This record gives sequence, C-alpha cells and structure tokens, in this order.
Amino acid sequence: MNHYLLTLLFEGTNYHGWQVQPNAVTVQETVQDAAERIFGTRMNITGCSRTDSGVHADMFCCTLRTEKAMEPSKLRLAMNAVLPPDIAVKAVHCVPETFHPRYDALGKEYRYVILNTPYKNPFYVHRALHYPWKLDLDFLNAQAKDFIGTHDFTAFCAAKTAVADKVRTVTKAEFKQVGDTVEFRVAADGFLYNMVRIMVGTLLDMQRGAIAAGAIPTILESKDREHAGVTAPPEGLYLHRVFYPKNIIEGEGENGRL
Amino acid sequence: MNHYLLTLLFEGTNYHGWQVQPNAVTVQETVQDAAERIFGTRMNITGCSRTDSGVHADMFCCTLRTEKAMEPSKLRLAMNAVLPPDIAVKAVHCVPETFHPRYDALGKEYRYVILNTPYKNPFYVHRALHYPWKLDLDFLNAQAKDFIGTHDFTAFCAAKTAVADKVRTVTKAEFKQVGDTVEFRVAADGFLYNMVRIMVGTLLDMQRGAIAAGAIPTILESKDREHAGVTAPPEGLYLHRVFYPKNIIEGEGENGRL
Repeated sequence: MNHYLLTLLFEGTNYHGWQVQPNAVTVQETVQDAAERIFGTRMNITGCSRTDSGVHADMFCCTLRTEKAMEPSKLRLAMNAVLPPDIAVKAVHCVPETFHPRYDALGKEYRYVILNTPYKNPFYVHRALHYPWKLDLDFLNAQAKDFIGTHDFTAFCAAKTAVADKVRTVTKAEFKQVGDTVEFRVAADGFLYNMVRIMVGTLLDMQRGAIAAGAIPTILESKDREHAGVTAPPEGLYLHRVFYPKNIIEGEGENGRL
Repeated sequence: MNHYLLTLLFEGTNYHGWQVQPNAVTVQETVQDAAERIFGTRMNITGCSRTDSGVHADMFCCTLRTEKAMEPSKLRLAMNAVLPPDIAVKAVHCVPETFHPRYDALGKEYRYVILNTPYKNPFYVHRALHYPWKLDLDFLNAQAKDFIGTHDFTAFCAAKTAVADKVRTVTKAEFKQVGDTVEFRVAADGFLYNMVRIMVGTLLDMQRGAIAAGAIPTILESKDREHAGVTAPPEGLYLHRVFYPKNIIEGEGENGRL
C-alpha cells in the first residue's frame, strides 16, 4: 500500500469547509473526486483538521492510500490538472503507513487577515475582514500576549463544541502590519471550533472599547463563551502551517521547480 | 463647476478594459453608472489611459465635473457604496478646472506579476501569469536594462497602433522577487498599445532561449513587431502608479483613515 501526504492550498470561498457533508460542496469531496479521476477508484482522503465554510488554507495536509504507486511529482501534476482553479496541490510526500495527518500534527498556525484601509479593496473580496478604523498594534499585541501559555479555552470556542478537553497551549499570538493589511498570527498545539475567530473578534472588541483592556485572563477564567467577543467572519482566516515531526516529510517527495 | 480626480483600484477580470464600448461591460461605464446614481445625471468620466480587457489597476485616475459640490471624503464613501466589489475609490481630490488625467500625467508605472511556483495558486487566478519554470533574475535584469532610455518602441507595440510618435522614455525596467511571484516593474513617460505585455513576452522568450540574449537593442532598431516576442497575457498586468505634477494633488482631498 502506498501512503501519500498531499499539501494543499485552497481558496475556501466556494466550499462548505473541508469535511464531506450532504447537499454541500466541500474541499474533501472535491479532492476525492480528483483522486478518483486519477486512480479510477473512490478513496477516503483524511484531513489534518476541519475548516469552516469560507476559510482558506495556505497549507492544508491530507493523506490518501492507494494500491497503485505513483511518483510524488507526477501525482502532484496529475492532481493539479484535474482539480478546480481554487484548490491546488503544493507538494506530495510519501509517508509511513501509520502516519495520520491530524493525530501526528504537533501544532498549527493560523493567520487572520484584516484589510485596514478606509476604502474597500477588490483584491481582498472574500479574502480578508475589512476593518476601516484605526488599529493600534501595540495595544493589540499587549492584549494578545495574554493568550500565550496553557489555558482552558472554553470561553473562546463555539458553545456547541463537543470535545471534552478544552485546554490548549498557545505559543504565538501577534499582530503585524503587512502592506495594507494587519495580520494576526496564532500558533498552538491545537485549536477548538471557532477559536481563532473568537480570539480575533474579542481583540477587535477591545480595540473599539466594547471589552475592557486587560480582560482576557478574566474571560479565560470565566470559561463562559458569553464573556468573550463576537466571532470574526470566516473570510479573513487562513490555515497557514501544520507542524509535523521533522522526519515525517524531510527528504521525501519534492518541492522543487519543474 | 466642481472638478474631482478619483483614484481607483480595480480587478479587471470582469471588464473589457476601461473605455466604454458597445455590447461589453467596461470600467468607465460602471463608474459612470455609479456617479449617475449619486448625482442624478449622466456625466462623462475621463480616464488617464485605456486599459485592456482583464488588466488590473492598483491606481487608475479619472475625473468628473459636477454642478453639485460634495466633500471629497463623502464622494469616496458614496462611490464605494454603489460600485461593485471589483472597483473601489481609494481617494478623491479637487483639481483645477483645466486638469486632464491623461494629458497632465508625467508618466506611469506598470507592474507585471508572474507566479513562479511549480504548482498553480488559487489566490492568483486571473491575477498573474503562471510561469512554472526557473527564472534567472540577474539574466532578466541585465536584458531589461536595454529598454531604459529614449527609444522608438514600434517593435514593442501592437501592429495596429495608430499613434504616430512611437518614441518613449523608459526610466525603470526591473525584475524583483516578491514572495512566490516575480514582478516586472516598468516606468515611462508614456506607453504604447500592448507595450508592457510585449516587453514581458520578449523577456520570457529570452529566458527560455527562443530569442537571443542581448537582442533588445537590435529589436528596437528593427522597428518591426515581428522581431519582438509574444504578447504576455493581460491577467498579470497592473497599472501601478500615475505620476502628476506635485501641486495637483498634494494637500488636497484626504487619504486618511475614517
């Protein structure tokens, strides 16, 4: 059996997230359709995480198992030829039989893009939150620091989240100016449902004074979703990196130019 | 009479260029429709240049004259509320009655975006030329230098170009790596029809060996379109800046945040 790790890049606007669901087009289903055209059989493709409707990925990892062996570079070329324009395969690696893209992930990094100009921008439609008012990056970074460390993030996940253990370790939470945009980068060993979007919504609520400065530790302690801010819209969110143990993908596959 | 200079930003994919034409949607017509909704009368809006179908603009200047006075910041807000998502107004300035966005331009700068990764990228669909092979920026910059100076650009414009004087002065012609893309930036006192796209097509033909290194001076001297390379596709081209005498827009209007 051949086991491949595919690194995807996708523009999530036209998809109802990653996971297959009835009556909606998803990224997983579309990637499975593409693989079926190449290998001639329907196979299940396992993803590194669920993503919400309209969320994008700079890097999303998924795996497929096939009887038929194929050169990683040829598989990438074939997949890119059949996938629609809003999904691409950046790289293909051979991985050990036991590898799992979700369970073997050491952590992930998301970025949230905020278009911070007084006017709208055609190049960021569906790809950023437009926030036309002034952002104070020193203030925002001082607030965001309170997320760093190991905390119970119950207050920062959607109330319906079923998972029992809501303790996560955040290792990065910072704002940076990138051209006309402000990017919030957050890395953790794992994320809960809507966690990044609620973090961003809360920080923007603090920026505009709707939530008091310095309130994040209190909100975390409350373990009450009602105490955090709004859920920021999905279009600004990008899964940016998935971290795996180095030996999994190093030296395998190929990332080079044609 | 009030005379306003509007600085636009547009994603040209859905438009047949700037200029109004029968049976096709253009940027000019769409901006005139928006202005008509605001002022209640149809007016002619004058642009700084024609742009081709599918070409984008980081900055495109156009002017409108109205009896009704309006605060520049209010006019920007009103225009952005009625324009479709792929056209935005970045700034509005009051300009002298005699100002003309084309004749008063001292020059322009274009950028041509080449996505230089072996795989496609959903975020650059319709917004870059995908060139998956290796680009040698030192080589390309050495070739592009030959465009700098005052030359007859007959060989580098579409054969059907009607304008008599084809002498232009190029002040910048350089390639730069920008993330996964390579950008070609070219500035001149004026541009002929398809000039940037033929310059890019020729340089890429030199990169792949279809045209000999060092051939640009000979091609310029030939004044023969047949000697230059292919016309690069429109989707990589962005009108990046229009240069005006400083006193025209300095201190006028407002560029600040809301």
